[in-house]
Amino acid sequence: MVQLDQQAAQAPILTRGSGPLDQALRARARRVVPGGMYGHLDVEMTHLPVNFPQFYETAHGATVVDVDGNEYVDLMCSWGPVLLGYAHPGVEEAVRRQAAIGDINNGPSARMVELAELLVDTVSHADWAVFGKNGTDATTACCTIARAATGRRKVLKATTSYHGSNPPFTPIMSGVTAEDRANIVEFAYNDLASLEAAVAAHEGDVAAVIVTPFFHDGFGDLALVDPAFAAGVRAVCDRIGAVLILDEVRAGFRLDLRGSWESLGIRPDLSAFSKALANGYPISAVTGTDALREAANGVYLTGSFWLQAVPMAAAIATITEAARTDAVGRMTTLGERLLTGLRSIATSTGIPMIVSGEPTMPKIRFEGDPEMRLANLFCGTALEHGAFLHPWHNWFISAAHTEQSIDLALAAAAAGADVVRAAL
Amino acid sequence: MVQLDQQAAQAPILTRGSGPLDQALRARARRVVPGGMYGHLDVEMTHLPVNFPQFYETAHGATVVDVDGNEYVDLMCSWGPVLLGYAHPGVEEAVRRQAAIGDINNGPSARMVELAELLVDTVSHADWAVFGKNGTDATTACCTIARAATGRRKVLKATTSYHGSNPPFTPIMSGVTAEDRANIVEFAYNDLASLEAAVAAHEGDVAAVIVTPFFHDGFGDLALVDPAFAAGVRAVCDRIGAVLILDEVRAGFRLDLRGSWESLGIRPDLSAFSKALANGYPISAVTGTDALREAANGVYLTGSFWLQAVPMAAAIATITEAARTDAVGRMTTLGERLLTGLRSIATSTGIPMIVSGEPTMPKIRFEGDPEMRLANLFCGTALEHGAFLHPWHNWFISAAHTEQSIDLALAAAAAGADVVRAAL
Repeated sequence: MVQLDQQAAQAPILTRGSGPLDQALRARARRVVPGGMYGHLDVEMTHLPVNFPQFYETAHGATVVDVDGNEYVDLMCSWGPVLLGYAHPGVEEAVRRQAAIGDINNGPSARMVELAELLVDTVSHADWAVFGKNGTDATTACCTIARAATGRRKVLKATTSYHGSNPPFTPIMSGVTAEDRANIVEFAYNDLASLEAAVAAHEGDVAAVIVTPFFHDGFGDLALVDPAFAAGVRAVCDRIGAVLILDEVRAGFRLDLRGSWESLGIRPDLSAFSKALANGYPISAVTGTDALREAANGVYLTGSFWLQAVPMAAAIATITEAARTDAVGRMTTLGERLLTGLRSIATSTGIPMIVSGEPTMPKIRFEGDPEMRLANLFCGTALEHGAFLHPWHNWFISAAHTEQSIDLALAAAAAGADVVRAAL
Repeated sequence: MVQLDQQAAQAPILTRGSGPLDQALRARARRVVPGGMYGHLDVEMTHLPVNFPQFYETAHGATVVDVDGNEYVDLMCSWGPVLLGYAHPGVEEAVRRQAAIGDINNGPSARMVELAELLVDTVSHADWAVFGKNGTDATTACCTIARAATGRRKVLKATTSYHGSNPPFTPIMSGVTAEDRANIVEFAYNDLASLEAAVAAHEGDVAAVIVTPFFHDGFGDLALVDPAFAAGVRAVCDRIGAVLILDEVRAGFRLDLRGSWESLGIRPDLSAFSKALANGYPISAVTGTDALREAANGVYLTGSFWLQAVPMAAAIATITEAARTDAVGRMTTLGERLLTGLRSIATSTGIPMIVSGEPTMPKIRFEGDPEMRLANLFCGTALEHGAFLHPWHNWFISAAHTEQSIDLALAAAAAGADVVRAAL
């Protein structure tokens, strides 16, 4: 069992969570924002512990601070973008330097070329790169490039895998038409037979298979990729002349800077990156192989802010620093400490908590808890004890975590486990 | 005829344009970016005067500077986002202040509420607001909300009107499937009969009509909105229970801060804003009426960077400053000076140049010039004389322009006109 940091384990217990300033902002928000919130947070505010704050003031390193001044050891990293820690000095300095020169203009800055060169040097399969703002911009571009290259229509994706918030992919069907989904075909992750069945059902019309580096979606447990599945997806795409798209938007740069399947020896044709690319600055990227260069050049990819120099400078600083400091290696070691600690807590308290996922992107789930009452009790209590642990979304480790901050999170988790055990 | 500023008219003529640093970056870009560029710039680099630079270094006020250090009076405003001028002190100060506090976090900051309140106070039809990054995020959200509210599928748009770079709307069909367009129906701008025909062809299935405040797309002339058309669109939507979406992404805040059709007495149900909202910082917004609040709350709207506090702080500063200084009024006066001057140049030189559009968003076109040879000669010459004038896209005035900078642009245009006249 992991040795908890003694100071962390003995830290005084404070009651923290949504306070009067957060509540006042919620009341104001309800008047001018439908439901008081949009997006995944809208979905989640109704599925979160009641003491979770909605509004935040600041953040540094591995710590977030809500509008009432409560500090939490953070394991969400702004839902992924924060890779090196909040307000990372090196990234912030690169941002200040570029902002003093220029950001948006009538065309790109030299940063666009430098960032594309850096991605080509860093990501093994990449011969070229193009840039957008949202992860959805990147996954959409991948699908469009694949269709342009193949002259086919169908994109095969794993059931419940999330690939974007646009109508073809959004997990909520309100306002989505059948036509929006007409060319999306589903198979089961880690199940080559189901992929083959989907291919057979649309023979000659499969433009692409889009897949995440591991299965990190849905309300069940996460699943590491079966290496035979990864190899099988590559073989299927090669056999039928379809494009293999690796959706790295969520996992990219938290498993392997070279590409998340590089250690398996599997390279995609296109990759979609976004969240962690610039440590929180808004940018996404598609990287691709020479075989798809002409198709990528022929499709229409544009947005009003897609040439901004500052997020590109932030991305250059983030990737360079992550490589220089072996951020993935350090995050993985800390993530393993977290996973080990969480599993020890579950075992020692006997609570039915299952921990799944990659060390840098773990997730918890309670058996027999479809309404997430136990998960919310666990995470609500952990929040009071100073750690932001999400009850049903995967967590994210950043390179700003330390053994001490992980142990603080584990101490808060232990307090949550005690309350869950008492409630059972 | 407008009186040209004497100093500007007598400014020394310098040869400017793509230089050795720009050429070197282009060569590097061709290796790591398909075609050396993506997006509208990719489309346009092959349709621009050969001396136009691709890469830019910095910008201030109404001036852009390319990587070779050439300065130009700018009439593109980064394709629209720059409303108050590049590096506007008030906006930059708001950005620095917010950046020192926080930007991305596990939830929104108070700026989200403040910006939504400001939009509700500023935009006449708005009862609420939600935020994204791209203009396309906003137009997509409008369509989804309209479909959710009505339970219908079809979105009616004007032929060649641009409403986003995603498959349903992109002007280039490479990689776009028929299904992506299955629910898009076209009519002719300013032509109520064609709108009625489109409605009749899809009776009972029209979710929305999406329309720009004036006709600002395509390779022909721009067209001001016919007030009877605007009123007719509103009446049709009311009659059939469809949602009227005003796509303000390009024109928003350059015609009227209250909404571009407010002076006509026509209010939309939903508006999509982006470009000028935060003076170049990446944000978009949907504003809507109470009748669509529930539908907006029920659809899935999210992106990794959609809660960033800094662009929201920039938007608050931009809108506040634009209102305080009557930016629209000042830009309109300067735009009229520009239009008058351009038309005088055309008349006095006899070149077949047609100037169309709103004063703050004008466009030039040469009669009998389908390959834009005259337009490129005109704008290439103007560039050498220090003004960035686009040969086929609409231009944008910012509030940082002055009579002197407009006159500098006119002096450059006059030089272009002389070369065109000599070539005819």
